[in-house]
Amino acid sequence: MKVAKGSAMNTDNDVQQTLCPIARALAVVGDRWTLMILRELTLGSRRFDDIQAQTGMSSQILAARLKRLEEQGVVERRRYNIIPARYEYHSTEKGLDLDSVLLMLRSWGLKWCVYPEGGERATHLRRENGGEEIGAEFPIGPDGKAFRFTSLQREMSSGFASEREQRRLAFQTMKEGRRARRQA
Amino acid sequence: MKVAKGSAMNTDNDVQQTLCPIARALAVVGDRWTLMILRELTLGSRRFDDIQAQTGMSSQILAARLKRLEEQGVVERRRYNIIPARYEYHSTEKGLDLDSVLLMLRSWGLKWCVYPEGGERATHLRRENGGEEIGAEFPIGPDGKAFRFTSLQREMSSGFASEREQRRLAFQTMKEGRRARRQA
Repeated sequence: MKVAKGSAMNTDNDVQQTLCPIARALAVVGDRWTLMILRELTLGSRRFDDIQAQTGMSSQILAARLKRLEEQGVVERRRYNIIPARYEYHSTEKGLDLDSVLLMLRSWGLKWCVYPEGGERATHLRRENGGEEIGAEFPIGPDGKAFRFTSLQREMSSGFASEREQRRLAFQTMKEGRRARRQA
Repeated sequence: MKVAKGSAMNTDNDVQQTLCPIARALAVVGDRWTLMILRELTLGSRRFDDIQAQTGMSSQILAARLKRLEEQGVVERRRYNIIPARYEYHSTEKGLDLDSVLLMLRSWGLKWCVYPEGGERATHLRRENGGEEIGAEFPIGPDGKAFRFTSLQREMSSGFASEREQRRLAFQTMKEGRRARRQA
C-alpha cells in the first residue's frame, strides 16, 4: 500500500487501499447523516423533502449524501413522476444489510443514552404480532441471524409520531416562508 | 418536543429531545472518525500519536473527538506519566458495548466492500484458538449474545500489519519533518 507522506488515511484513495473492513464500511456509511437517511428509509420516508424534514439536513448535504449512497449501490432512485422528474429513494439489498447496524445502534442507544423524562420509546419492535418486544438486548432472530426491519412488526409510539409531525410542520412552515420571501 | 423553526434536527439540543434511540446513538458515535478511534482502541492503540497515525485525523479533530467521547463516558483517560502529563485512552463499558456495532460494520464491509486484488482480510477473528473463523456472517456468540473483541481471538494479517507499519512510519517522518522545520 502506498501512503502519501504525512496523510495517513484521510483520503478516499487511502480508504480504498486499506485492508480493514471497518474502515472500508465507514467510508461508505460512517457519518451521522448517512445513517439517518437509512433510518428514514426504514421508516418509509421515500421523498427528498420528507427525508430532509425528518433529519434536518441542508438540501445540499442531503443531495450529496444521496448521490454518494446511490453511487455506492446502497440506495436507488425510482422515478415516480415524469415531468417534472421526481424520484423516490429505496434501499437496495446492500442498504437493507445495514439494518443490522441500525438495530445495533438502536440497542446501544436504548441502553446507554439517557432519555427525556417520561420519554416513550420511539418505536416498538416485535418479532410477530403480539410477540415479545425487542428492547436493548442483542437484536437477533430465532434463526440466529440478523433481523431486518422489514421482517419485524414496528409500531411507532404516539410520542415519536408527534415529534415527527412537528418536524414535518416546522419544515413546511420554513419552506413556505422562503417561497413567500422569494415571491415578495 | 420543541423544534426550532426550520432547524428540524440539526442541533445537539434537538438530538437530546428526540425519542429515537438511533438518532441519539448517532449523536454520540455517528461519524467515521469516532468509530475509527474506537476501532483503534480495540486494536490496543492507547496513545494519542498512535491513534492519529493509524486514523490519519488532524490532531485538532482527534483531540475534539476524544474529549467528546470522554464527556459522553465512552472513553476514559488514564495518566501514565506524571510530568509531563501523558495519558492513555481506554474504552469504558459503554464504549465496549459498541464492539457489536463495529463487528456489524466489519461483517458488512467484508460482504459488500470490494477489496484490492489479492487483499488479505485485515484480521482473522476466531471464537477460540484454532476454532472456526468469523467472516461476513452475522457475528453472534454461541450464547446468542453479541461478541466483544476482547472475548475473541484476533490475529492481524501480515498485509494489515505492514499497512499499519507504513502508516506509523509515514506519521513519524511527517512529525520529524515538522520538528526539524520548527528548529531550523
